Amino acid sequence: MIKNNAKERLTPLLDWLKFPSISGDPKYHQDLDGCAKFIASYLQGIGLETVEIHKTPQHPIVYAEHCQSPGKPTVLIYGHYDVQPVDPLELWDTKPFDPTEKDGYIYARGVADNKGQIFCHLKALELILKEMGSLPVNVKILIEGEEEIGSPNLSPFIEANKEKLRADCILISDNPMYGYNQPSLCVSLRGISYLELTLSCLSGDLHSGQHGGAAPNAIHELISLLSQLKDPETGEILIPGFYDGVRPISGELKTSIEELSFDEKDYGASIGAKSIIGESGHSVPEKLWYRPSLDINGIWGGFTEDGAKTVIPAKASAKLSMRLVGDQDPMIIQEKTISYLKEVAPDHVTLSFKPHHGCQPAQLAIDGPFFDSAKAALKHAFGVEPVIQGEGGSIPIVAEFQRILGVNTVMMGLNNTDDNIHAPNERMRIENIEKGIQASRFFLDSI
Amino acid sequence: MIKNNAKERLTPLLDWLKFPSISGDPKYHQDLDGCAKFIASYLQGIGLETVEIHKTPQHPIVYAEHCQSPGKPTVLIYGHYDVQPVDPLELWDTKPFDPTEKDGYIYARGVADNKGQIFCHLKALELILKEMGSLPVNVKILIEGEEEIGSPNLSPFIEANKEKLRADCILISDNPMYGYNQPSLCVSLRGISYLELTLSCLSGDLHSGQHGGAAPNAIHELISLLSQLKDPETGEILIPGFYDGVRPISGELKTSIEELSFDEKDYGASIGAKSIIGESGHSVPEKLWYRPSLDINGIWGGFTEDGAKTVIPAKASAKLSMRLVGDQDPMIIQEKTISYLKEVAPDHVTLSFKPHHGCQPAQLAIDGPFFDSAKAALKHAFGVEPVIQGEGGSIPIVAEFQRILGVNTVMMGLNNTDDNIHAPNERMRIENIEKGIQASRFFLDSI
Repeated sequence: MIKNNAKERLTPLLDWLKFPSISGDPKYHQDLDGCAKFIASYLQGIGLETVEIHKTPQHPIVYAEHCQSPGKPTVLIYGHYDVQPVDPLELWDTKPFDPTEKDGYIYARGVADNKGQIFCHLKALELILKEMGSLPVNVKILIEGEEEIGSPNLSPFIEANKEKLRADCILISDNPMYGYNQPSLCVSLRGISYLELTLSCLSGDLHSGQHGGAAPNAIHELISLLSQLKDPETGEILIPGFYDGVRPISGELKTSIEELSFDEKDYGASIGAKSIIGESGHSVPEKLWYRPSLDINGIWGGFTEDGAKTVIPAKASAKLSMRLVGDQDPMIIQEKTISYLKEVAPDHVTLSFKPHHGCQPAQLAIDGPFFDSAKAALKHAFGVEPVIQGEGGSIPIVAEFQRILGVNTVMMGLNNTDDNIHAPNERMRIENIEKGIQASRFFLDSI
Repeated sequence: MIKNNAKERLTPLLDWLKFPSISGDPKYHQDLDGCAKFIASYLQGIGLETVEIHKTPQHPIVYAEHCQSPGKPTVLIYGHYDVQPVDPLELWDTKPFDPTEKDGYIYARGVADNKGQIFCHLKALELILKEMGSLPVNVKILIEGEEEIGSPNLSPFIEANKEKLRADCILISDNPMYGYNQPSLCVSLRGISYLELTLSCLSGDLHSGQHGGAAPNAIHELISLLSQLKDPETGEILIPGFYDGVRPISGELKTSIEELSFDEKDYGASIGAKSIIGESGHSVPEKLWYRPSLDINGIWGGFTEDGAKTVIPAKASAKLSMRLVGDQDPMIIQEKTISYLKEVAPDHVTLSFKPHHGCQPAQLAIDGPFFDSAKAALKHAFGVEPVIQGEGGSIPIVAEFQRILGVNTVMMGLNNTDDNIHAPNERMRIENIEKGIQASRFFLDSI
């Protein structure tokens, strides 16, 4: 149930949240179409001069612009209307597509990721247009329906519409704030290179009684190989040239980390770890945001069911991914990793590789008028000076905007870290939505 | 189809093979009972003085004796009437319980393992009794129905019937000859200690973007731990005290290996390995038969399905087993392994262990009158001097006979290594059965 006063402030977000716009499930195809039309209709209704729906091979892109302020900067606001699947449904306390107000939160799939956050900007535009009749800057809006499935049709759309999308600044709110009522500006996103590896050393599995002690064992060989990826003492990744393109952490970023007073013990306790690992000589925020990392994400080989089977496995596999920073390139990192593993592997093993996805890291401006306006806007709305942070994960579109349009992004996260995105009971604080609207309005007014 | 002349020589083996005596599948319970009765009836029919069926919590033990030769040695012949499951049935060219003669072989589940081999001894007794009216030695026969499920009720039966089972020598044919028409006497069986290990280092799986570079990763931790089990250069197992009880390889065994002219290149090619691994300074037969080994039989952790998931796993597991020789004890080895892994594991990981089965190794006599008679018997039957070999796998009952009865076993394997035991199209050469009958008869006549 939504109270009447909230209803008014949250129009039309609550109706928007009713669309089960799950991009990863073909049976919701029409709901994505409907959702795109709903947004377009809302944007027309608030008075934007151009509103378009662009078909793609999968889900449509909603594009709108209102460029009636010559000489003023142009802001491109990006967001996505598609959402994650809702499984396991039985863990939801309320229906995922029946938005429900409870304890100051709206509970619904997609409310934080990303409908509620993009709504803040759209609502700000609605309010400004209603009160002023015009916008203080030129605004372009790009809302896609495929973010949760890797945005396969977005980069081609941007490539094909460079002129249309020309802007001075991109504004994205699709990430959490640093803490509860502690706004932040995210200035760095790590990239990724993901690789699968299979090692084989026998023509078939063998009996460990009949062959144990003389026959090579794929698990032992794989372990030996993977244990050469990092220096056990320093945590350094040993792939030659891996760190090429990693930039030193600037004084500004170092200062911004110091200002966080990050508590490593609290962090360890929060993840249930008795020790923090990783590169020596770097703090946890440095390691998570501004330094690359390597993790084996999966390993399997031999007999893995219940009970005991005395097999010498002929092959064993692992999945591994590297988070990238600075100028590291996922394709080059992939090549270097494959070359290194082939080089250190003994002659009697055979390696095969299956590359998975990759994405460029992004380094965003930490100064300039847009950055300063965003800082001021967040302080105005939340009453607290925003902190500077990085993001250890990847948001591929940011690097794509940089690459294709050459435009820097301001990342103004508006939700909290405990909003259960991608999980049951996704939620967003109504207060954050309201403050997000204020921040957006302040930003548009001050740039 | 079985030809008439073969039918006569192979009576009653062919009828015996029709029983689907699969001990591992409860639905064949009555067939195991029927099979036991069939054997008992046959043994009574050939004139043995005592024939008994002993019930156990699962499948009955057939026991018979014919001790009418005071002052003569007593031989206890052991075998099993239960068989492995037949899956995958579609890979069989003939019906597994419809014994079929083809190209000099009988094809049927259990014909090599172990009905055909134990039949050689029973048939020899039948022929001697028919021709001579008496046996030249005292004979006891023990045929169980639970070998393929780990013989859970056999050791208790032996413990409870020590006096009844008292013998001077145990005779077992439940293993292959060294080569085609190359008989062998097996003088060593490796034991085993099998252990499962789970390592955890986080309270739950984490996102590798948000935590990669600082959070410990259970796969990396497990790899690091397991890579400390063996010296990568020498192949030596690094668990302190692991080699306690491993006996130096005697001059006799060394000579017996030299006589084999074992070709390590052929061996490598036969298993599809470009290199032979293991302890330096030992030949392949030494490594496989007379030296202990350690193999990781399974490993799993993190995301192992198709595609890519960027998880930092909270836990990872492995199954490992060690083959044991000489006086190594599976329980002590298990304790030493657990202690060592706990000691070398860093403080921030938690280990839990699930012990699986274990079994003692067995060292058998390589001389004495029974051994010499067995050698002569095999040479008589096959026309070739038997070689001495070890067996890398485990036959737990041999060590149990030694432990409980204090009696040495003569292991007179009669089938070939390519008889597809435990696999589709199990078979045994009719010639091997005939020569086995001759060998058994010669052995009983000459001890």
